[in-house]
Amino acid sequence: MQRTRFNEIACSIARAFDILGEPWTALILRDLFIGMKRFDDLQRRLGISRNVLAERLRRLVDEHIVQRRQYSHRPPRHEYELTDKGLELCRVLLVTLAWGDRWTAGPEGPPVLLRHRDCGELTHAVVTCAHCDQPLDAADVTVENGPGAQA
Amino acid sequence: MQRTRFNEIACSIARAFDILGEPWTALILRDLFIGMKRFDDLQRRLGISRNVLAERLRRLVDEHIVQRRQYSHRPPRHEYELTDKGLELCRVLLVTLAWGDRWTAGPEGPPVLLRHRDCGELTHAVVTCAHCDQPLDAADVTVENGPGAQA
Repeated sequence: MQRTRFNEIACSIARAFDILGEPWTALILRDLFIGMKRFDDLQRRLGISRNVLAERLRRLVDEHIVQRRQYSHRPPRHEYELTDKGLELCRVLLVTLAWGDRWTAGPEGPPVLLRHRDCGELTHAVVTCAHCDQPLDAADVTVENGPGAQA
Repeated sequence: MQRTRFNEIACSIARAFDILGEPWTALILRDLFIGMKRFDDLQRRLGISRNVLAERLRRLVDEHIVQRRQYSHRPPRHEYELTDKGLELCRVLLVTLAWGDRWTAGPEGPPVLLRHRDCGELTHAVVTCAHCDQPLDAADVTVENGPGAQA
């Protein structure tokens, strides 16, 4: 059976989850976002097969979410870094982390804590309205057709 | 090969994507969040097989993200609604939508627009710091071990 092509659906959520809808991809992005760069380090930390990691990284490079940069010529070695598109995708991970800490962490509490460099305090991500800065929830919005809606 | 158990990893992102890491699940949540409730409506709108939809809804009910409520006894009919846990998960979708609109929508522009009921304006989701209310990006935070970190 052919995999459904979610990137062909006129929906930005479908298109994003065509990339993100694979838990390893989310965890590769997580580790790049905390500063890991090298294939072997990612592979060791994630405990993922080399084939799967190579395939997922290739997809992320093809999507311009990650860039691959050669840092040694002899032997040839590459490192991986998030692009601006990839760094912004990490906002999805920040909000996912806040949700997961609240609903999946259990009695032990959150596995990690975030500290905001600017204010110095422990923090979590809050989703707000771009216009009025108030907290924004799914129940607070109505949906209208946009210019890219299918005819 | 057995599927990796992402929910056993001490990471709230891994645990959330153990649920979300399947594009259909994200789209089912999207449609519940815009007010669809009935199996047949979801099935028709998504163009998904009944088996896949039933299996994904069952998982969401098991995870207490969706509740199933009987609204007719003869014939027996059920509807599906987001719980508080599910409504909060939709914040991840709001941020995913903002990212997808910016990076995947292409020249046609966003397929849908959001209007904030409270302020009345077209909006998109912005991720901010729970402490200082400033915009929060992955590059703005440092990560520390939390109480639920693995020994």
